[in-house]
Amino acid sequence: MNIKKKAHQLSWLEFTDMEEKDKIVFLNNSKTGNPFHVLFSQQFNRTTLSLLCQVAEKARLIHKNRNKGRKFLKNLLFGTYALNFFAQPSTRTRLSFEIAERILGMDATTIDNPSTSSEAKGESMEDAIRTFSSYFDLMTIRHPDKGMAELGAWVLNMSDRRIPVINGGSGADQHPSQALTDIYTLHKSFNGEIDGRTIVMVGDLARGRTVRSLSYLMKNYLDMKLIFVSPPHLRMKDDIKTFLLRHDIAHWEADNLQEVVHLADVIYMTRIQDEWDKKMPTAQAQAKEYKPIAKYRFKKEYLDLMQKHAVLMHPLPKRDEIDKEVGYSGDPRVVFWRQERNGMWIRVALIATIFQKEQEVLDY
Amino acid sequence: MNIKKKAHQLSWLEFTDMEEKDKIVFLNNSKTGNPFHVLFSQQFNRTTLSLLCQVAEKARLIHKNRNKGRKFLKNLLFGTYALNFFAQPSTRTRLSFEIAERILGMDATTIDNPSTSSEAKGESMEDAIRTFSSYFDLMTIRHPDKGMAELGAWVLNMSDRRIPVINGGSGADQHPSQALTDIYTLHKSFNGEIDGRTIVMVGDLARGRTVRSLSYLMKNYLDMKLIFVSPPHLRMKDDIKTFLLRHDIAHWEADNLQEVVHLADVIYMTRIQDEWDKKMPTAQAQAKEYKPIAKYRFKKEYLDLMQKHAVLMHPLPKRDEIDKEVGYSGDPRVVFWRQERNGMWIRVALIATIFQKEQEVLDY
Amino acid sequence: MNIKKKAHQLSWLEFTDMEEKDKIVFLNNSKTGNPFHVLFSQQFNRTTLSLLCQVAEKARLIHKNRNKGRKFLKNLLFGTYALNFFAQPSTRTRLSFEIAERILGMDATTIDNPSTSSEAKGESMEDAIRTFSSYFDLMTIRHPDKGMAELGAWVLNMSDRRIPVINGGSGADQHPSQALTDIYTLHKSFNGEIDGRTIVMVGDLARGRTVRSLSYLMKNYLDMKLIFVSPPHLRMKDDIKTFLLRHDIAHWEADNLQEVVHLADVIYMTRIQDEWDKKMPTAQAQAKEYKPIAKYRFKKEYLDLMQKHAVLMHPLPKRDEIDKEVGYSGDPRVVFWRQERNGMWIRVALIATIFQKEQEVLDY
Repeated sequence: MNIKKKAHQLSWLEFTDMEEKDKIVFLNNSKTGNPFHVLFSQQFNRTTLSLLCQVAEKARLIHKNRNKGRKFLKNLLFGTYALNFFAQPSTRTRLSFEIAERILGMDATTIDNPSTSSEAKGESMEDAIRTFSSYFDLMTIRHPDKGMAELGAWVLNMSDRRIPVINGGSGADQHPSQALTDIYTLHKSFNGEIDGRTIVMVGDLARGRTVRSLSYLMKNYLDMKLIFVSPPHLRMKDDIKTFLLRHDIAHWEADNLQEVVHLADVIYMTRIQDEWDKKMPTAQAQAKEYKPIAKYRFKKEYLDLMQKHAVLMHPLPKRDEIDKEVGYSGDPRVVFWRQERNGMWIRVALIATIFQKEQEVLDY
Repeated sequence: MNIKKKAHQLSWLEFTDMEEKDKIVFLNNSKTGNPFHVLFSQQFNRTTLSLLCQVAEKARLIHKNRNKGRKFLKNLLFGTYALNFFAQPSTRTRLSFEIAERILGMDATTIDNPSTSSEAKGESMEDAIRTFSSYFDLMTIRHPDKGMAELGAWVLNMSDRRIPVINGGSGADQHPSQALTDIYTLHKSFNGEIDGRTIVMVGDLARGRTVRSLSYLMKNYLDMKLIFVSPPHLRMKDDIKTFLLRHDIAHWEADNLQEVVHLADVIYMTRIQDEWDKKMPTAQAQAKEYKPIAKYRFKKEYLDLMQKHAVLMHPLPKRDEIDKEVGYSGDPRVVFWRQERNGMWIRVALIATIFQKEQEVLDY
Repeated sequence: MNIKKKAHQLSWLEFTDMEEKDKIVFLNNSKTGNPFHVLFSQQFNRTTLSLLCQVAEKARLIHKNRNKGRKFLKNLLFGTYALNFFAQPSTRTRLSFEIAERILGMDATTIDNPSTSSEAKGESMEDAIRTFSSYFDLMTIRHPDKGMAELGAWVLNMSDRRIPVINGGSGADQHPSQALTDIYTLHKSFNGEIDGRTIVMVGDLARGRTVRSLSYLMKNYLDMKLIFVSPPHLRMKDDIKTFLLRHDIAHWEADNLQEVVHLADVIYMTRIQDEWDKKMPTAQAQAKEYKPIAKYRFKKEYLDLMQKHAVLMHPLPKRDEIDKEVGYSGDPRVVFWRQERNGMWIRVALIATIFQKEQEVLDY
C-alpha cells in the first residue's frame, strides 16, 4: 500500500476523526513499521520500545568516546537540518531535542517566540508548516492547541516535501517523547525488566500529558499495576481508564501518597499544571501561592518507606510536590535528574530510527 | 580606484543622498564587479543575475550528494561566522538565510528580539553594527526603518573591519534577496528564458517590497510586459513607473485579476501589508477581519484560465488572497512553495559569490 | 583535599557567607590552580592572567590560518555543548561567549528569553541549573540578581554532574570575563608591560561591574595608580577602596576628566547605568533624556591632550559619554572596538584553560 498516496486523499476532518489505531498506518514507515511521524504513544509497540531503548543505550556508550565515537554519531545525519517549532515554551524539551539532533550531526534551529513568526501576519498554521518544511529535514512541534502536530503531519503527507514531524507536546493531550523517556528510565532502572511493576502516579493526572502517555504504553507490558493518587478534581480521566480496562491493566485510585509508597516499584510525581487554569493571573503569580496538599507531596521521610529497588521519577519542572532536599540527597533511587538525560538519549534513538540509522548505531 | 578609502571620506548624508547608480561603486567588489554589500536590486545586472542563477543551480545539485557534496559546500566558508540581525520579524527570511549560511559551512547566529539588544541601553545603531562586526564575517540586516542596511554598509566601509552587509528588508523599501529569489524562480520555470514574458503583479503594489524590487530588475531583460492589478489606494508608486518608462519597459494597470489571468506567463500575488497601517490595532487582529476584495484574489477556478506554461508565484506569507485549495492542488504551475526553497538556494549563491567562491562551486 | 566532596558538605548559606579568598578552593581546579568555575576576578593571580593572555594571543594567531588552524581549534572541544543562560539581556556578552565557544568547536546554545524558561512554571533556580547541566558541558550565567552564578556553581558542586559555570555578569556585582578582556587589552596595548600604569576610570563607578572587577585585578600588578572620576553619587564604593588600601594600590578621586587626561596611560570610560534606577520609566525612555555632565564626558578635543602611548577604553555599549566622532577618528589610541574582539579571544583562552587545553594551544 502506498501510504503517501492514500494519505493525500484524506481531508483533515476525515483524518483527525479516525481512531488512533487507524491513523498509525499513515504515520509509521510502511517498510520498517517504525514511526515516521511521531504523534502519540499508541504508535509504539513492545518491539519498537525495546529497539529504541537499545539504540539509546548504544548511542550513549558510543558518545563516551570523544573522538571516534562522537564523530561517528555526528556523521549519521551530517548535512541535514532540524526545526524545533515551539509555540508553547518548554526549555527542557527544547534543549533535549536540540542536543539530541546535534549529537546526530543535524543543524538544529529553534523558534520559540511566536511573535517572530509569520502567524503575526495572518498566515495559517498549515501554510507555516508547509513553508518551514522547505528548509528542513525534520520538524518537532510543540503547541498549546491540541492536534497541531497532527495537523503538521497531515499537511506534509499531502505535500511533495514529506518530512517527519515529532509531537513535542500539543494541547493537554500527548507528549510521546516524554513517554519514551519514561520507558527508557524504567528500562535502565530495572535492567530491561519492566513487566509486573507497580507504578504509583501522583498529582495532576487529569492534565498531565506525561502520565497519560505513559499509561497508554503500559499495554505493551505484562502484569503492570497502576495506582493513581490525585486531588479529586484532577483524577485520571475516563478515556485512559477505559483504555486500561480494555487492555486488562490493573489500576486503582488511592487518596494518600504516604499509604502506598511502600507498594511502589516506581513513584511517578507530577506538578499541578495550574498554568492551564486560564482564570489564574499568571503562572508565576500562581507559583508563589502554590502549596500542594500534604497528601499528594513526596516528603523526604518517604525515602525510608520506599522499597530498596524502587525509583522516584518526575518529568520536571517540579515545585513543592517533592521536598527540595530529596533532589540533593544523593539517594540513588532518586532518578529524576538522570531521567532528563535519558530523555536526550531516547530522542537520539528516536531520530536515528526515523531516519533508518538504528542498525548503523547498533552495529558500531 | 580604492573604494574603501573613497567610502571612508563620505559622510552619511553625502552617501545616502547619492542616486542608487552612483552608490554601486561603493558597494560592489571593485575587482569582480559583483556585489560586496547587497542593498538594492539595481546592483544586479543581467550578467550577475545569470551567474547567480547558475551558481544556485549547481549548488543545489552538489547538495544532493549527501556525503562528498555537502562536505564540499560546508568547507567553502568553514570557520566563518554570520549574524542575522532581524529587528523586524520574518521567520521565513530568517530561516532561509540561516540555512543558506550553514549549507556553506558558516556558523549562523540570529538576533530577532530587539529587547535583548543593546539598543535597550541607548546605544546608537551605528555602534551596534560596528560592535557586531567584531565577531562576524557577514551580517544580514532586517529593520522596520528604511536605510538601516545602508547605514550598516556605510559604517563598516568607514571602519577597519569591513565585512559585507546584506539587506534582508528595510523599511517599505527594498528586499533584494527576495527579488533574486523571484528571478531564480523565473529562470527555473522557463529554462533560463525570461525575455519577453508578461508578469501580472497583484495586490499591495504600493508597499510590497518584492514587487518593487522585481520591477527594478526587469530592465535586465528584453520585451518584458508588466500588468499591475491593485486596489486604487495601493497602486504601484510613481518612482517605479518613472523607472519603467525610462527603461522603456511596457506596463499598464488593470482593475480585475480575472480579466488578465489568461495573458500572464507569471501571476505574482502579494499580501495586503496592513501591518504597516499603524492605526490598526495589531496585525493579528487585522488578519481576522482581513478579506481581500474579490477582484484582487486568485480563485481556484482561475487555474483553468491560466496558460499551460504559466506559473503562479507568491512571496509568502499569504492569507486569503489565494484560495487555500490552490496550494494543495498538486498543480505544477503553482510554484510558491518551490519559490521558498529557491530563495534558500539563491542566497547560497549570493553568499558564495560575495566571498568569491562562485567559481569553485561551478567547477565542482 | 577532595574539593568536590568538601563542597558537597557546605550549605548554601555557609558557602555564600565565606570571603572570596576562602571560596577559591571550591572554584579552582585543585590540580592546575586555574579556575574551574569562574565567578569573580579575585580568582585570577598574575600567573593565571599572564597565561590567559598568552593563550588568547596564540589562539588568535592560529585562527588566522583558515584551514588547518581553525580546524585545530574546532577540534579541541569537538562534540561538547555550551549553554549561555542569559536572564539579563546583553547582546555583546552573549555573542562574545557564543563565538568563543564555537571557535573551540563547542555547540553553543543561548537562552535569553526568561519567559521561555521553566521559571514560568515555578521551578527554583537551583533546579533549573541542575536540569540544564543534564544537557551541557559548560554553562555561562548572566542574571540581574547578585549571586546567581555562585548559586549555580554551588548546586553543581553538590550534584553528580559537576560542569563548570562562568559568571557572565550577575547583579551589580562582578563581571569577570569583562575584567579579563580589559587585562588582555592592557596586555596588548603595552606589549605585556602593565606594571606602573595610571588608569583613569570615568563614569558610573558605583554600579559599573567592569571597573569594580578591574580594580580587584590591579593587586596583581606593581605600582598601579587609579584615578576615579565620577559624579558624586556614583563614586567608587568603599569595599573597593578598602581593598585597594589593603593591597597598597595608589588611588584618588578627581572631579573633572579634562584635568587628568594628560596623566593617563589608560582612560577607561563607562556608561551611566541608569537602567538600574527602578524608578525610571524604561531604559529606552531614559536614553533619550540622558545627557552626561560635561565633566564626565570624553570630548573629541581630548584626543589632543592624551599621551601618545595612551589608550582610550570603554566596555560598551556607550551613549554620549564619548563624542561620536572619536570612535570613527581612526586614531589608533581609540581601542574600544578592538577591546570587543579581545573579549572574544580572552574567552577562548578562558574556556580552553577550564578544559585544560591551554598547553595544546600554546604548543601548536
